[in-house]
Amino acid sequence: MTPLATRRAVLGLLLAGLGAPSLRAQPARDPLPSWRDGPRRRALLDFVAAVTREGSSEFVAPAQRIAVFDNDGTLWVEQPVYTQLLFILDRIRTLAPQHPEWQQDPLFRAAIAGDLRGAAAGGVDGLLKLAAAAQAGNSPEAFQRMAAEWLASASDTRWRRPYTQLVYQPMLEVLAFLRANGFTTFIVSGGGVEFVRAFAQEVYGIPPHQVIGSTFALTPGEQDGRITLTREPRADFVDDGPGKPVGIARHVGQRPIAAFGNSDGDWHMLRYATEGPGRRLGMIIRHDDAEREYAYDRESHVGRLSRALDEAAGRGWHVVSMREDWTRIFERD
Amino acid sequence: MTPLATRRAVLGLLLAGLGAPSLRAQPARDPLPSWRDGPRRRALLDFVAAVTREGSSEFVAPAQRIAVFDNDGTLWVEQPVYTQLLFILDRIRTLAPQHPEWQQDPLFRAAIAGDLRGAAAGGVDGLLKLAAAAQAGNSPEAFQRMAAEWLASASDTRWRRPYTQLVYQPMLEVLAFLRANGFTTFIVSGGGVEFVRAFAQEVYGIPPHQVIGSTFALTPGEQDGRITLTREPRADFVDDGPGKPVGIARHVGQRPIAAFGNSDGDWHMLRYATEGPGRRLGMIIRHDDAEREYAYDRESHVGRLSRALDEAAGRGWHVVSMREDWTRIFERD
Repeated sequence: MTPLATRRAVLGLLLAGLGAPSLRAQPARDPLPSWRDGPRRRALLDFVAAVTREGSSEFVAPAQRIAVFDNDGTLWVEQPVYTQLLFILDRIRTLAPQHPEWQQDPLFRAAIAGDLRGAAAGGVDGLLKLAAAAQAGNSPEAFQRMAAEWLASASDTRWRRPYTQLVYQPMLEVLAFLRANGFTTFIVSGGGVEFVRAFAQEVYGIPPHQVIGSTFALTPGEQDGRITLTREPRADFVDDGPGKPVGIARHVGQRPIAAFGNSDGDWHMLRYATEGPGRRLGMIIRHDDAEREYAYDRESHVGRLSRALDEAAGRGWHVVSMREDWTRIFERD
Repeated sequence: MTPLATRRAVLGLLLAGLGAPSLRAQPARDPLPSWRDGPRRRALLDFVAAVTREGSSEFVAPAQRIAVFDNDGTLWVEQPVYTQLLFILDRIRTLAPQHPEWQQDPLFRAAIAGDLRGAAAGGVDGLLKLAAAAQAGNSPEAFQRMAAEWLASASDTRWRRPYTQLVYQPMLEVLAFLRANGFTTFIVSGGGVEFVRAFAQEVYGIPPHQVIGSTFALTPGEQDGRITLTREPRADFVDDGPGKPVGIARHVGQRPIAAFGNSDGDWHMLRYATEGPGRRLGMIIRHDDAEREYAYDRESHVGRLSRALDEAAGRGWHVVSMREDWTRIFERD
């Protein structure tokens, strides 16, 4: 080898072994390709730039970079009804042959018939009764497996896709963008915690221990020489409205600096995050795109958005227009 | 510059910028320098080697590498009484002038006088009564700050050091060793969750959201136009004994593959972790070193170890002898 060739070979080895691509000027990749340029996209970029700029008065250490996300309507579709309710109705139908007594109850009869309106007629109490019948009596592990199996086989009727593909691509970009900037991301959902854990890792890159949700009481016991945990047909924590700050304080142990929601059920969480000192970000996803997704707010029974919308400007929360701010809704759009 | 000097300068820049030390052969650093060679040290090394060896039948993906640690007596000193009890008694003394009525109650009089025996005479109910009076009525954030301030100023009477220096150096090495091998480490403590969170990040490298503990009920409210959370003088979750698997299922959302404890209060947690399928590790820290720390087991009121010790061999749990297995107890030994 000539001295020059040797030199080149040595340099080549060095570059190969040491991650040479970082030497070359890389065009900065857009972290939010599905966000149209405008005030909301700029709010996201500015917020992250501010809290990560070392030495600035708005700098936040990585350990305190906590961001919380509602799930239904914020990360995935919640219309015409919550996906978990469809799961509950399917479970009721599956279990019905073992429960002839259900035929005596109009609520269960409606559920078995797939009559959404009838199943919802009992209000929250009725839904909790169906949820308890459909979802309790098993271990958290078994229930999570059951939910994962259902999600792997069930399909939405409008798009004819698995529900786990009806997640908002622009929000997946926000999750990844925040994590790339040292944030820890949490889901704070009114849905059942094990139901959301069944897909959060695979779909959102969020591990089970960063999912907070509503819970049934868990009873420890013993069977066949092993510890058992049984989900009782009784909600012991409802992670919605004022429950969201409670769940966050309990589970995360520090006040988030960023919160994302889409309904009045997120009003307390948005306030809790944005009322803390220093730079904060509150963001509301507004469903105003009937063509590509759904359009609903004040009159909707699912994901009602009214008070949070009225107060957004005064509280400095950014209202994202799905129609204007997002170039696409789903990954496959 | 001569061509040679230029070449050296270029290489120097490359090496400086690209983390050159990784080029040199590093002698493998002992991950457990405070552990004497023997069955326990080997059990730790073998377990980690087995679950991290790709392609082996015992391989566990990083997302499932969950390890849980009791705190009192497993990670730091718990004798002569739990550190949090000393904090409670100090708080009672501080608050006493505002509560003249406490002088009418023998339990509070004992606490104010610093009479540990008298303060403990009311059993668990008495302790919860003292804890509620000392620790409730504030927000989780305020209480955690209070605990951090106390820990920064208080000193143990035997070693005359802050309690946060009375953590076991060999266990800090286990925490770091597991994390270096892709594990996520959690504390599962009978102590109050905010009390442990006040020091877990700094002392153990464990963030607040990976600390599970006992909790007081939290009430959401509003004051001066801001959301408030108030810790009520009522325990709503006791993270001890059968509560530990419940806390883990609730918070972690998956069964740990390794558990470390030191008392019968960890028996359920050790079983929950080691009864799962595949390779598992259960480890009990036995306090048998009166000279360097304390010696206690079946007869102790704090950290009683009896049933878990009797069943250790049958369940495949490793019993660590502090005297024989650890070359030092604290970092400064």
